[in-house]
Amino acid sequence: MSFAPLQNDSFLRACLRQSTDHTPVWLMRQAGRYLPEYVATRAKAGSFMGLATNTDYATEVTLQPLERYPLDAAILFSDILTVPDAMGLGLSFAQGEGPRFASPVRDEAAVAALQVPDMDKLRYVFDAVTSIRKALNGRVPLIGFSGSPWTLACYMVEGKGSDDYRLVKSMLYSRPDLMHRMLQVNADAVAAYLNAQIEAGAQAVMIFDSWGGVLADGAFQQFSMAYTQQVLKQLKTEHNGQRIPRLVFTKGGGLWLDEMAGLDCEVLGVDWTVNLAKARALVGGSKALQGNIDPNVLFAPPAQIEAEVDKVVQSFGRPHQGAGTGPTHIFNLGHGISQYTPPEHVAALVAAVHRASRRIRA
Amino acid sequence: MSFAPLQNDSFLRACLRQSTDHTPVWLMRQAGRYLPEYVATRAKAGSFMGLATNTDYATEVTLQPLERYPLDAAILFSDILTVPDAMGLGLSFAQGEGPRFASPVRDEAAVAALQVPDMDKLRYVFDAVTSIRKALNGRVPLIGFSGSPWTLACYMVEGKGSDDYRLVKSMLYSRPDLMHRMLQVNADAVAAYLNAQIEAGAQAVMIFDSWGGVLADGAFQQFSMAYTQQVLKQLKTEHNGQRIPRLVFTKGGGLWLDEMAGLDCEVLGVDWTVNLAKARALVGGSKALQGNIDPNVLFAPPAQIEAEVDKVVQSFGRPHQGAGTGPTHIFNLGHGISQYTPPEHVAALVAAVHRASRRIRA
Repeated sequence: MSFAPLQNDSFLRACLRQSTDHTPVWLMRQAGRYLPEYVATRAKAGSFMGLATNTDYATEVTLQPLERYPLDAAILFSDILTVPDAMGLGLSFAQGEGPRFASPVRDEAAVAALQVPDMDKLRYVFDAVTSIRKALNGRVPLIGFSGSPWTLACYMVEGKGSDDYRLVKSMLYSRPDLMHRMLQVNADAVAAYLNAQIEAGAQAVMIFDSWGGVLADGAFQQFSMAYTQQVLKQLKTEHNGQRIPRLVFTKGGGLWLDEMAGLDCEVLGVDWTVNLAKARALVGGSKALQGNIDPNVLFAPPAQIEAEVDKVVQSFGRPHQGAGTGPTHIFNLGHGISQYTPPEHVAALVAAVHRASRRIRA
Repeated sequence: MSFAPLQNDSFLRACLRQSTDHTPVWLMRQAGRYLPEYVATRAKAGSFMGLATNTDYATEVTLQPLERYPLDAAILFSDILTVPDAMGLGLSFAQGEGPRFASPVRDEAAVAALQVPDMDKLRYVFDAVTSIRKALNGRVPLIGFSGSPWTLACYMVEGKGSDDYRLVKSMLYSRPDLMHRMLQVNADAVAAYLNAQIEAGAQAVMIFDSWGGVLADGAFQQFSMAYTQQVLKQLKTEHNGQRIPRLVFTKGGGLWLDEMAGLDCEVLGVDWTVNLAKARALVGGSKALQGNIDPNVLFAPPAQIEAEVDKVVQSFGRPHQGAGTGPTHIFNLGHGISQYTPPEHVAALVAAVHRASRRIRA
């Protein structure tokens, strides 16, 4: 496959710690329910998975935020739970609730039965990647993604979202052997899944360790970070002569940033609890940083949004300039955008990032 | 009032960074639904607030875990939302749900109307403190407590628990003036409330900043920590010739421990994401540390519970020994105990703490 040449490479350059004339910005869950055009497409598709499994719809909604805002990257529209669904766990989305698995993995037999799924079952994802990449026509790069092995395991054991992670942690503490086996299968599956996205056209890949931060110190390193690393070391780092940056985001993982600096990836995402100046001092010598404004800032009026954007840009400080590599920043939220966000406030945020980040370079 | 002399002062000594022959242990929410005798008393009382407002019932349930386990402290049975209830917000507990306020505080007029409540409205709490202290008869010290100004504000604005804190953060970012006014009232109210608990017989007081960890870096310092400090500096540090240690627990606050070292308190509580060895290195020169095992460890069999207790005890390392003061540890969970916990597993945990912590001193 060959695709149109890239017109805005600021995101990829910043991932690789190369200089850019502004700080690239994109938003986690930027294609989503806060956009009326997304709601309209979803209504046509009938359901969330109807949207994700239809190439045309997935392409349409991925591009919607780019029509409104000068974002510097697109991200595949999909769900983090496609991989366990392909393993046969039976994913569904009940109206007004989160995802749910019909067959959660809760005992030795269920763990023993787990296998890396046939990637053909995830063909709809790779088709969407190629379709989106074509539709982007070189405007901005396309990010592929997956949940981390631990985050997938949380859903696979709990069967749905949880506020205490009681079942998955009970297994972790009672039967660490089962947990390790599940995580190894997940790691191999996630690696195959992300490599197939890269082959289909993804220009960067991100691992969402959304629930790494619920683990205890010690358990995080052993049950989350170690398996994220298992994924990373299996990933293609180049495709068709282009480097493919790898991003890792552990929500609530700020305390472990110094250890995550050792991960085999280019970018670490951080949430809003992290002080960017301190994070830069800790890991800026080897990793680009992505984040980290509180999505709730978007409920304030534009003037306050600008002031909060300024604080984040100032906190990271002046990024690397000129040739070679150095500390760089990719602006993002510290978590997915809320469905209640006023769309015009997103415009204010994106403009403020571009403005403030050009100013700090001047 | 005069009370029986204290027989087990290990908790108070550890709070003051004095040596003890074992690491004292108590558990957040130790009087609770995991105990069948608690469920029986609650059934008699008819409701959670029926339990909390009745001196005899509150005394009975506070002492229940001490009848089962050799815990080193008791904590007042009450709720963190008694103060906003006394402000007139109308607290209720719906069956199977969390707390709820009939009149949440969401606009300028509601904020302007807030006042430090008449402490007479909280007389039932102070009566319970005195009754429990008498019933303890010097066995172990009694801890009083309150929610932090910020944590109270979260519930006061949201009206109930939240998973995104959208309303309270919208106010924070849009109208910081209103938020500051609410937090100042809360701080003065919490200080008066805790001082009255001390006068009624509480031998230590703890501030639960349960939702401090949801704030962004910068916002935490300004909207949570600053008002916790406002409370602390108004608290009595001695009563009837006895020092009254002050404990502060910010769930999810591990990233800010270095700044919290400057708080005017004796003990910092930490959750399970914190590495105790690192925390000790950061703050052990001025504060005792309390925590921090994951409550989900209690779902594993006793042998694994013992192994995890050992890890926590080893992670803190050998506490201060002999005369004078030095780094000390109070063992606790990193969050409240789950209602699904098998009671016999709690016995295993408490015994393991006493055993492992005597061993590390030997």
